[in-house]
Parts: sequence; structure tokens; C-alpha cells
Amino acid sequence: MRVTLIRYTPDPELTIAAAARISASPSPVTEHLEKLTAQKADRLLAQLISAGHMSPLEHASFTFSIEGISRVTSHQLVRHRLASYTQQSQRFVSLKNLGFVTPPSIKGKPQLQAQYQQAIRSAFEQYLKLQEAGIPAEDARYLLPSALETHIVMTMNARELIAAAALRLCLKAQWEIIQLFENIKAETRKVAPRIGEELRPKCYKLGYCDEPQSCGLFPTLKDTPKPPKPH
Amino acid sequence: MRVTLIRYTPDPELTIAAAARISASPSPVTEHLEKLTAQKADRLLAQLISAGHMSPLEHASFTFSIEGISRVTSHQLVRHRLASYTQQSQRFVSLKNLGFVTPPSIKGKPQLQAQYQQAIRSAFEQYLKLQEAGIPAEDARYLLPSALETHIVMTMNARELIAAAALRLCLKAQWEIIQLFENIKAETRKVAPRIGEELRPKCYKLGYCDEPQSCGLFPTLKDTPKPPKPH
Amino acid sequence: MRVTLIRYTPDPELTIAAAARISASPSPVTEHLEKLTAQKADRLLAQLISAGHMSPLEHASFTFSIEGISRVTSHQLVRHRLASYTQQSQRFVSLKNLGFVTPPSIKGKPQLQAQYQQAIRSAFEQYLKLQEAGIPAEDARYLLPSALETHIVMTMNARELIAAAALRLCLKAQWEIIQLFENIKAETRKVAPRIGEELRPKCYKLGYCDEPQSCGLFPTLKDTPKPPKPH
Amino acid sequence: MRVTLIRYTPDPELTIAAAARISASPSPVTEHLEKLTAQKADRLLAQLISAGHMSPLEHASFTFSIEGISRVTSHQLVRHRLASYTQQSQRFVSLKNLGFVTPPSIKGKPQLQAQYQQAIRSAFEQYLKLQEAGIPAEDARYLLPSALETHIVMTMNARELIAAAALRLCLKAQWEIIQLFENIKAETRKVAPRIGEELRPKCYKLGYCDEPQSCGLFPTLKDTPKPPKPH
Repeated sequence: MRVTLIRYTPDPELTIAAAARISASPSPVTEHLEKLTAQKADRLLAQLISAGHMSPLEHASFTFSIEGISRVTSHQLVRHRLASYTQQSQRFVSLKNLGFVTPPSIKGKPQLQAQYQQAIRSAFEQYLKLQEAGIPAEDARYLLPSALETHIVMTMNARELIAAAALRLCLKAQWEIIQLFENIKAETRKVAPRIGEELRPKCYKLGYCDEPQSCGLFPTLKDTPKPPKPH
Repeated sequence: MRVTLIRYTPDPELTIAAAARISASPSPVTEHLEKLTAQKADRLLAQLISAGHMSPLEHASFTFSIEGISRVTSHQLVRHRLASYTQQSQRFVSLKNLGFVTPPSIKGKPQLQAQYQQAIRSAFEQYLKLQEAGIPAEDARYLLPSALETHIVMTMNARELIAAAALRLCLKAQWEIIQLFENIKAETRKVAPRIGEELRPKCYKLGYCDEPQSCGLFPTLKDTPKPPKPH
Repeated sequence: MRVTLIRYTPDPELTIAAAARISASPSPVTEHLEKLTAQKADRLLAQLISAGHMSPLEHASFTFSIEGISRVTSHQLVRHRLASYTQQSQRFVSLKNLGFVTPPSIKGKPQLQAQYQQAIRSAFEQYLKLQEAGIPAEDARYLLPSALETHIVMTMNARELIAAAALRLCLKAQWEIIQLFENIKAETRKVAPRIGEELRPKCYKLGYCDEPQSCGLFPTLKDTPKPPKPH
Repeated sequence: MRVTLIRYTPDPELTIAAAARISASPSPVTEHLEKLTAQKADRLLAQLISAGHMSPLEHASFTFSIEGISRVTSHQLVRHRLASYTQQSQRFVSLKNLGFVTPPSIKGKPQLQAQYQQAIRSAFEQYLKLQEAGIPAEDARYLLPSALETHIVMTMNARELIAAAALRLCLKAQWEIIQLFENIKAETRKVAPRIGEELRPKCYKLGYCDEPQSCGLFPTLKDTPKPPKPH
């Protein structure tokens, strides 16, 4: 898996902070862009996120090249609908080389891993043979296993990055999409430290685990010492 | 493939027409719902669609049970983001029985079809063996071919049904998703004849084919006798 | 203000529960629709919401006729983008009668209220006069105050109703939109008691107030006795 | 009205073209970004738009500062839901200075314009008086006319810019929002000439006018010499 931030809104955190400022100010955003310091922008961003005032975070977008994830994970990823995707098509690209993902649970076990590789290679050979026999790539690919690598370009704004990471960095998510969002977080952090910091499991915002069982990071609500009650 | 319309907004076309009426009327929608006849609603709907005033068509939603499509097609389907999906999970459901889709290009050829079936059965056996060896279903499924059948529940409003069908009933789409939208059209038509009628390739709205090459239904713009020009 | 639920997905809670079931079951939704009891559906819905698994709640839609709200409030309402709106147009409808909203802070004070009404009547008279002088309604309306009543048809699914109510039933919201969502809640509750119940301020989910200052319903995080920490 | 493009995805057209390339290529987007020339990117963009393959155009975002539009127009603008907005709030900003928009139909006529200005000034004075009497700004603003100027920050991707302009540059739209989109087009054009060029009324794509009556730019379908028919 290789994740590269290829494009983003310049000065993403300053842009968000300046946009947020106009809602309670008579001055237009162009003035706020000039006056705001990086430090003030960072503090304002922290306040917005802490109070759940998330809409200004939509003004900064991030475009990632995501290479070498399985189609298992690309299928999960594109379910986040408030984002834009362009994916390598198995309809139009007839694969020549076999790249595939191996789950860690299989990697450590030589015999299982050999079986796994053999099964994938065998499926891939049949895919090639069908094409040699005149079947179009778009139909031959019905044989291809979900493990096969794909490339995808994804654009997501900061608000949705935070919302998606809240679900996908939760340990209830699958290992490959967790790894994907860890890479996204690392890339984002380089150019937007505060936003990168906020890419974390949903329990951090809630202060408790809302899943049926906790991974241990935060207790579930029923295990929280004094669950707050409405007055 | 089995497509069943399981739920929809009652009186979908009347609802849309009554909602549309309020934009140019002092009366609230409740009055229009009482006064409108089915015939007037049908005429109004035809006018809205013909003039591209599509937003009132969002007030009627349709929920389909889609059973027995391949994961090739479910992957294409969920790319329509203005809709809601719940899909059978291969993470949590360990498949016991093998249901899979065979492309028509393979179906007619006994030898190829035998190879195809054998490849899928073999992959499925390896999937079961990995689980017997203690690999969780969510990882074993990396071996599963895209041909495997899945179930999905989809809710889409009338506007998005028309927009999605415009792309997916075009003969440039793949045979399986064309077939899916033909089934969606047949189901929709039963309860909303005008909307069902409007589920058709994009060339009907354009009056020409905007793809690089035409299937013959409409000519491309360069083959249109007198391409209209702005005055 | 008058809010009427005019259409909704039949059996909304059963539909959501049956859709949710398919993600972890080999059976299609049609079977779950038959097997589920109202009681089981209610329990399943409660679990989904409590665990934040909200996507199945998109399969039930609710269409409201909203009459007699000010344009202040319709402007706030349409900012919820995951919903569908058709609004009475001031471009095409030349208002004949003057309906307007008076804030409670003004209502109790006879002198202020008289000034308020006079100001609105005076603006409305100028609006009529401009039209008599040949100015089109769409331009004359630039004079119309935000207090003027409007009608709107809104369709929102259960997930977005819960998300919007979380913000708009918070006491930090303005009185008129709070009142609007209280009406929406009352209407929803009649046909979907569990969903109606879940239309409430965001602090109920969080277990604390994330605004800078609490209204007293829940304490802010810094006033919570033992704020849970990650292990 | 003042419209300023304050931020955008760097190299917007190259980014879109490179993303589009991966769907039919084995190479990842990072390679296409290196290899593509501006000229090739322009040609590819033209092909994508002409064939209606619009999704790659979502990878480039544009953030505008929009200052001094009326609330009539901001209300129309925010109805485009596939975009992000932050608007100056009349709840939290108590207006000190009176800025307002005058429609051209009124501007040329001294007497009408005097009445118009007087009506707005009078409403504004009442707004100030209510606040002096202790009414909060959020309630006093119910008196404010729609002509009052507002500031808004808007982020929209290239695909939605084209879709919104198709509607808002049609002469059936109101003069102020037409003017707004002409400004948006002029700003976009400076950094993305091809996209800027494509911001134009919907009739250019259709090749005919789909409104009940044509402005003369393109004939309606019934006035088109040989309306193409499906074979």
C-alpha cells in the first residue's frame, strides 16, 4: 500500500479558520486571511472541532493517490459518499501483472500462505486463459479475487476525513482500512497538523466506546463510573 | 438476479406534482394533494422532466431488494452516491453456499463455462479451507472471486433513479448493470408509470449520442444533420 | 407554524430493521420483512442508534408540509443539505396577503410589537407600490422583510432527521427552528415512535455538552466529574 | 458585488486529467501527473466534458469569497447542495452599516429608487431601535429586508461549478445570480481556462433550449429543424 497526498487546498488550516471567522464578523474572508496567524488559526480550529462546528472544515480538500490496496478495501472506502473517487477500471484495463494483498493473519503461516498464493495465481491464470479464448476482460474479471490490488484517486475535505477516520480508525474496522487511514493521517499531518491530529477513532469525541464491546481504549457507557444524566 | 420494489413513498407521482405546485402558488402542498388528479399530476411530471426542473422528483423514494448480483455490479452500483445502501457483509457472513454469476459471453460455450465454474469452485474451496485452518472469514474472503452473488437493499429517489438509469441503460454500460436497471425500471413502472418511462439512456434527453461512438440509437453530434448553433 | 407529515415510507421502523439485518445474514431483506416483529424491530433500531450504525436509517424517508415559518428559518433549514426541499418562490408568486412571524421577545411588549408590525406593513406596502409602478415581483421582493411567512415541502430520511435535530433542538439554536423541530418530532413520533424519540439535542448522544457553555441539561466536559481518558 | 477566488487545488486541470487517466491505465496517478503536458490535459478535459464523463472533475475545488450579494441571492445560491458554504450570520453580527443591493429595474428610475432606498433605511432604523429597546439582534433582524448585503465563502468542485452554471447562467435565472456566476466564471477562467469556458447555460450541452420558451440562444426542441429520433 502506498498513500501519497498529491494535491490539497493551499494553507488548509488558515483557510478554514478565516472562513469560520466570517460567520460572526462584519469583515469578509479576504481580510481574515491577511490578519490571521498560524497560531490563532490553530486555536480557532481546535475550538471549532471541540464544539462540533464542523462546516468550515469543508473548505479544505485533500487529494490522495492510493495505490496497492485490495478491492475488499476499495469497496469499503467508496461507501463514504461525501468524497470523490476515480478508480482503475477492471473493465478497460486488462491486467498483465499480478499484484495482490495478503492479510497478516495468513502472512505468518508458510503453508497457508502458499495455499493462498496458489489459489490467487490459479484464478489469475484462468482469467488470462478466458481472454485468450476471446472473452472480453470485463467478463473474464468475474474470476478475479478480491485480494487483487487496485489504484484509486480520492478527494475528501477535512470534515469528511475526520468523520471517516472516526469510523475507520476504530479497532472494529478491518486491518487493511485501518492501515489505509493511518497512512492518510500521516500524509495529512505533514501539511495540516491539527487536522491530522483529529483523525482518530470516534471514542475520542464521545469520551466513551459506543460499540457493543470496547477494545479497551475507552470504557463503554455502562462501564463509565458516573454516566452523566440530563438534569 | 431478483429485483423487488419493497417500499416506496405512497402516491409517488401525485406527491411530486403537488410539491412542485407550491413553488408558484400561494397554497400549501396539503391543498394541492387534495386537488390534483392523477391525470394532471402525470402531465405536470412530464413538463418538469422535459424542462429539467428535477428537484421536486426527490420527494418520492423507492426501496429495492436486489438479490443475486455479482460483486462486480454491486461495486459499480454503490458509486451512485445520492442513494442509500445496505449490503450483505462478507466480513460477518461466512458463506456456506456458493451462488455466483456467469457472464453471457461465457454461458454459451460449454468448455469455457466448465473452466469458469471450476475456477470459482476451487477458489471457494480454498476460502472454506482457510477458515477451517482458523483464518477469520473477513480475511479468507480475499480469495473470493468477484462473480460471487451478493444481496443489497437500495433506496433512491426518483430524480437519482432517472440520473443513474441515464448512464446505466446506455449500451456502453456492462450487461449486468444494464440488466439490473431494466429490472429497476420494470418494478418502478408498476407504481409510477411516468417515472418508470423516464428511466432510459441519456441520449433521449440530449437528442444525440455524446459518447465517442454511437450504438445506433441516436447519431453522435458530428453525424447530426444540422447541429444547432447559438444565435 | 403548521407542520404536517404528508408522506412517509410505510412501516418505517420495520423497513430499517429488516435492511439492517441483511448485513450480517445470508437471507435477503424480503425474508426479514416477513419474520421481524414490531418489538424486535424496535430493539434492533435502539441498538443501531446506540452503536452509531446509522446508515440503515436512510431507508425510511419522511415528507413534511411546513407552513408559516419565517424566511429567517427557511434559510437555516435548507442548509441541511442531505434533504430535499421545494419552497414557495417569491420570484413567481406575487404575495397578496401579509402573513408574518413575530418573535416571542417582541410579542409580550405592546409598544414594540406595534412598531414591529408597522415596519412590516410599511415594507409590504412599498412592495405592492413598486409592482403597481411596473417593477416585477422578483425585484420588488428585495424590500420584503425576513419575517414574512413561507411554505416549504421537505423530505428527509430518518438518519438525517436525527442529525439535524441533534443541532436544532440544542438550546443554542434559535427559538423558531427549535419550535420547527419540536413539531417535526411530534409528527414523526406518531408513525415512528423510536425515531421520534431519538430526535433530541446532541448532548444526549455525547453524554456531555460540547458547546462553550452548557444550558444545564448536561455539564460541559470540563465540568464532568471524571472525564474518561484513553488507556 | 465582489467575487474573489481565494483558494483552489493547484494545477486544477492537470489534476483532473491525471486522475481521469488512471481509470483506463495500469499506472498510478503520480506517474500521469509527471507525464501529462498542459496541452494534453486540456484535450483530455474537453473529451471528458463532451462525453459527459464528469466525475474526475470533482478532484479540483475552488473557494470563492463572495461579498455584497443580497440575501435573495445567497438564499438561491445555498440551494446547490453539493458545495460548502460559510455565511455571515445575522444572529451573531449586529449590523452597524447599511449595505444593500438595488435591482437594475429600479436603478434607472429616480423616484422609485428614492422610495426603495427610503423603505430600506426605514426598516434598518426600526431594526436598530428594537435592539436599543433590548431585543436581541437575532430577533430584530426579522425586520431586515432581503436586499441587505451578505458575505459568503463558497467551495465548489469543477463538476458542480459546471452543473450550477448550466442553470444559473440561463437567462431564465434572476439577474443577480446570473451576475454572480459571470463573476465566478471570470475568476475560474484565470486559473482553469477550459473549466471557465465550460461555465455556460445548459442549452450548450443539450444543443437546444429545454425551457418552455427560448431566449433565442438555441431553439426549443419543437423548433429544431430535424429533431433526431431513436432508430
